[in-house]
Amino acid sequence: MRLPSDSLAPMANAIRALSMDAVEAANSGHPGMPMGMADVATVLWGEYLRHDPAAPDWADRDRFVLSAGHGSMLIYSLLHLSGYARPTIEDIRNFRQLGSPCAGHPENFLLDGVECTTGPLGQGLAMAVGMAVAERHLNAGFGDGLVDHRTWVIAGDGCLMEGINHEAIGLAGHLKLGRLTVLWDDNRITIDGSTALSTSEDIEARYRATGWHTVRCDGHDFDDIRRALDEALADPRPTLVACRTVIGKGAPNKQGTSATHGAPLGKDEIAAARKALGWDHPPFEVPQDIRDEWRKAGECSAKAHKSWQERLATNSERDEFTRRMEGDLPAGFSLAEHISGLLASPQKIATRKASELALGALNPLLPDTIGGSADLTGSNNTKAGGIGPLTDENYGGRYIYYGIREFGMAAAMNGMALHGGVIPYGGTFMVFTDYCRPAIRLSALQETRVIYVMTHDSIGLGEDGPTHQPIEHLQSLRMIPNLLVMRPADAVETAECWEIALAEKTRPTVLALSRQNLPQLRTSADGNPSGRGAYRLKQAENARKVILIASGSELSLAVECAAQLEARGVGADVVSMVCTQLFDEQDAAYRADILPDVAPEEILRVSVEAGTTFGWDRYTMTHGLRFGIDRFGASAPAEDLFVKFGLTADAIVPQILKHLNA
Amino acid sequence: MRLPSDSLAPMANAIRALSMDAVEAANSGHPGMPMGMADVATVLWGEYLRHDPAAPDWADRDRFVLSAGHGSMLIYSLLHLSGYARPTIEDIRNFRQLGSPCAGHPENFLLDGVECTTGPLGQGLAMAVGMAVAERHLNAGFGDGLVDHRTWVIAGDGCLMEGINHEAIGLAGHLKLGRLTVLWDDNRITIDGSTALSTSEDIEARYRATGWHTVRCDGHDFDDIRRALDEALADPRPTLVACRTVIGKGAPNKQGTSATHGAPLGKDEIAAARKALGWDHPPFEVPQDIRDEWRKAGECSAKAHKSWQERLATNSERDEFTRRMEGDLPAGFSLAEHISGLLASPQKIATRKASELALGALNPLLPDTIGGSADLTGSNNTKAGGIGPLTDENYGGRYIYYGIREFGMAAAMNGMALHGGVIPYGGTFMVFTDYCRPAIRLSALQETRVIYVMTHDSIGLGEDGPTHQPIEHLQSLRMIPNLLVMRPADAVETAECWEIALAEKTRPTVLALSRQNLPQLRTSADGNPSGRGAYRLKQAENARKVILIASGSELSLAVECAAQLEARGVGADVVSMVCTQLFDEQDAAYRADILPDVAPEEILRVSVEAGTTFGWDRYTMTHGLRFGIDRFGASAPAEDLFVKFGLTADAIVPQILKHLNA
Repeated sequence: MRLPSDSLAPMANAIRALSMDAVEAANSGHPGMPMGMADVATVLWGEYLRHDPAAPDWADRDRFVLSAGHGSMLIYSLLHLSGYARPTIEDIRNFRQLGSPCAGHPENFLLDGVECTTGPLGQGLAMAVGMAVAERHLNAGFGDGLVDHRTWVIAGDGCLMEGINHEAIGLAGHLKLGRLTVLWDDNRITIDGSTALSTSEDIEARYRATGWHTVRCDGHDFDDIRRALDEALADPRPTLVACRTVIGKGAPNKQGTSATHGAPLGKDEIAAARKALGWDHPPFEVPQDIRDEWRKAGECSAKAHKSWQERLATNSERDEFTRRMEGDLPAGFSLAEHISGLLASPQKIATRKASELALGALNPLLPDTIGGSADLTGSNNTKAGGIGPLTDENYGGRYIYYGIREFGMAAAMNGMALHGGVIPYGGTFMVFTDYCRPAIRLSALQETRVIYVMTHDSIGLGEDGPTHQPIEHLQSLRMIPNLLVMRPADAVETAECWEIALAEKTRPTVLALSRQNLPQLRTSADGNPSGRGAYRLKQAENARKVILIASGSELSLAVECAAQLEARGVGADVVSMVCTQLFDEQDAAYRADILPDVAPEEILRVSVEAGTTFGWDRYTMTHGLRFGIDRFGASAPAEDLFVKFGLTADAIVPQILKHLNA
Repeated sequence: MRLPSDSLAPMANAIRALSMDAVEAANSGHPGMPMGMADVATVLWGEYLRHDPAAPDWADRDRFVLSAGHGSMLIYSLLHLSGYARPTIEDIRNFRQLGSPCAGHPENFLLDGVECTTGPLGQGLAMAVGMAVAERHLNAGFGDGLVDHRTWVIAGDGCLMEGINHEAIGLAGHLKLGRLTVLWDDNRITIDGSTALSTSEDIEARYRATGWHTVRCDGHDFDDIRRALDEALADPRPTLVACRTVIGKGAPNKQGTSATHGAPLGKDEIAAARKALGWDHPPFEVPQDIRDEWRKAGECSAKAHKSWQERLATNSERDEFTRRMEGDLPAGFSLAEHISGLLASPQKIATRKASELALGALNPLLPDTIGGSADLTGSNNTKAGGIGPLTDENYGGRYIYYGIREFGMAAAMNGMALHGGVIPYGGTFMVFTDYCRPAIRLSALQETRVIYVMTHDSIGLGEDGPTHQPIEHLQSLRMIPNLLVMRPADAVETAECWEIALAEKTRPTVLALSRQNLPQLRTSADGNPSGRGAYRLKQAENARKVILIASGSELSLAVECAAQLEARGVGADVVSMVCTQLFDEQDAAYRADILPDVAPEEILRVSVEAGTTFGWDRYTMTHGLRFGIDRFGASAPAEDLFVKFGLTADAIVPQILKHLNA
């Protein structure tokens, strides 16, 4: 649709006014971007974006991502003016105040229409790539009638300097995601001043080098913006639209400078801006005629939404599509049969291999999954169950070769999960969780169901040495809120962990998996014991003096220690600590049953994990014993390393006995 | 120098043989890259690289970085054949075994000539950018006579797909680092198979877009390699040399496939390779004539080294240059005067501001520092003491505008520190330690003196909300081995922390600094108490029942709590936990004096830190109290957030009293 040309400027100025006034009232925030991109955003939201403010969860809506999340007043203004129920003008008045959904940066869990949480630069763009993948994938499965939308991004220079944008656009170009359009706020200003202070890059040439289409426009000329967006629509490649803008446009004395970026304009400049913009309304007041225009624009896809609903109603795959978009698992989905098989024929295999077996069982049952790896497919064992590659020639494929792009993979998975309809999982080495940590944190904050398949989870990987051996990683991930870190000890626990991870609709999971083979310790699997976070694998035979708490590959070591202790008449429980977060959520009675709060003289608690001992006091108590590795690893065969770092029964048991006798 | 043409092939084959045989003996490793790049490496090390195997620490040597660190047998072969004392052939026989300096990936602390630790992809290239910066910077200060060398990198497709390479080359192109040459092993194979599985990028076009010169060569044609390297030398820009190679070249049945990448070739294929290469020598034997050629090549810069030594001997800045390269601080360097000034005029300022004051004092005294920020100069307060920008027009400047490239900045700082002669520090927000975490880990592993100025270190930053508020970051950094995390509480402690960080020659430091103003608590500064890691700021007045342990911005809160407790007759020590790592290194007597190991009924320990409570058990003991934040933050003014999260004396003191009375 085309809005009347003389409506556009006042509509854009409404954004400018709300933005500068909200930042002023909060006495903090970023007016420069919303004011600079107001014209572009008005054309996009007024004329191009397909959405329905009355139904923000319309599955076939366009996705809009404000990658430059600091300019949050832009999206708050757009949502408010377009007719979303929230934010109200009161919400906007309370911008950046406790309880307002108008947080400093846009949070997907606070407002409908905020498709993802942004602020950590570059990640919005990278999540948008994932959304665009999900769209094409679902389109391949459900057809144009149900899935046929676009993904739009507003990104700033910061987003485009961050390394992750390189990974993201490389993936998007390779997959030919032509429905993805990035509107670059080319204002040539960063916080420190001119972009010339830190970059000399020809950004468009770089995008073209990765298979993107690029086009330029004057970001303050409505017709030119339309021309550029039309070119973007017409081109089959993903498009970068370089929108030449003036940061803080409308603030006559500060515009074009970094002074407008991240601070209130101040009373005088705001007064001057009102004058320059011809905006003589009080703060937070938008005249009815401008509101009407915006509301009309917001309603322009309502008809499309309605006909989509009609198509859905008569579509033979309606129920399946709805289930997928609501994130429910198929009725009766379970890995029970797979687990029964494992119990029937115990195997000594690596948990990464056990994960492959689980995937082999679950992928055929669960069309929702999209797997992948950051170029470690054969090591992460992520391709199983007959799934084929997702490529530009077959978006219906279910396996993505992400390339050596760990961070880009993680962010894309966030985008897929946020889009809905798919459950992404992807692998790399555990040590490279560091490379994707900012995205893992956003998985947790955004409450996305993303499953990280992190293999080679300790010195047990052996010869690759300290750069590849996780030490602090398990514990450092366990302290990220709302993230499940699961470290299964054998094939049965691995299958149970997959079952738990898939059922968690609002929590991401990191599966920590071994490179090395591990014996199968579990002989039964009633009610998924891993779901309690920790459980007693083995009960003390003699009088209980020790509780050994271990995870993953060290559980069999704990069992070995327990056997040696029992042989000496010392009773020892063995507790499998599969997931500390889930254990901490159990009721007090269960926790006290597994780890009774008694003095160490009565029962000594001992932790064993081939990683840092930092934080294990939580479970061993202060005077318990903690076996682990508090230095960097080394390059050698795994068995040698376990000896070197004292993680053998021969090294551990004497220390326990010594402690008991002291 | 030019080697006789018929020597080059056997010299290269010596690399191939050592590489395939060492990997076979170890039964793990990566033969594909060393075999594929053997010809390029032979030309580079034989004819271009300026180094002296007899003096690996020659300050003006070229720096060589094997960014594709998995191909470690390449550099081990080169070092051995060129005449470095280590690795010996015995070391190579023990490739990847415990105690051998020939680790799975090259470790700078195990072998001279390994300039940096590589393996985590992309970071070698990014560190090389830092080395090239340091070279130009020292050249500006000490002239061509003392500093006039190049930086060479061998990188693979993995390095070039990682996001960090985008940040690194953007910086290098912007700073016009013409003495940096990247030799790209363009073999079109990654672990998963053909690069076509995951990328469609025109890499050379991308490099050109960032101001690089690019040239192509046949990586198996010695003359063509020379031509390309000569073009690189002749061009004033940094150069990417795309070396078209065959991975695993020489292994007749497996070359050109990912099968050669990361696994032994196997006995049969090795036999076939010997035949194909005409290499009929037993494993680990290199004929004397080939050894002689390599040794001669290794000695070819000895003369240049000698004349450099003569120039150094007569250079008026000899002592200063030597001091700088040895990493010593100037004689008598101290911040005592600055600290006296702070004690004389206490100020309520943010510790980020206190850091600026410290920099204002130290930068003029210490020409070694190169400061910078990832586009947060005014927020990180990193530019102080009259230092001006380091640019392509003034490499002598001491401040780098890194742009929005946190990871690139951190890796570049590693490179600078490894190069020597400079002490890099750089800033971003604490939450974005996640973005540079892989490089922070490498700072610690490589034992580099890099100082991270991480401001906005808690919810005290206020309105920016959960994406910007560190929660798990402090603790997750504290568990990285060999990394100091310092969280000073006021201006005096901040200055002390700077003094400590600068004096640490082999440990990196993260300074965690507040955005918000903090009262000056310290009234004396004898012997840098922060250097003990923790110290008693305030002694209990009434009978001691409580020890409050706090860091940074929460120290003043602890003081407030203590005052309220004392007012109720409850004696409370206040301990400033500036740096857990340094405290843990104190002797038992000191630790027991600060934190006596007595039952909580006798003395209750309480921690207060505006971040996760995970791991604080270590200091509070199991039955102590831990006040912190175990969820994501929120967007609101800081004071409101401290109330919301219960981090006020009014919220804390009653809980302590309740506990004492229980």
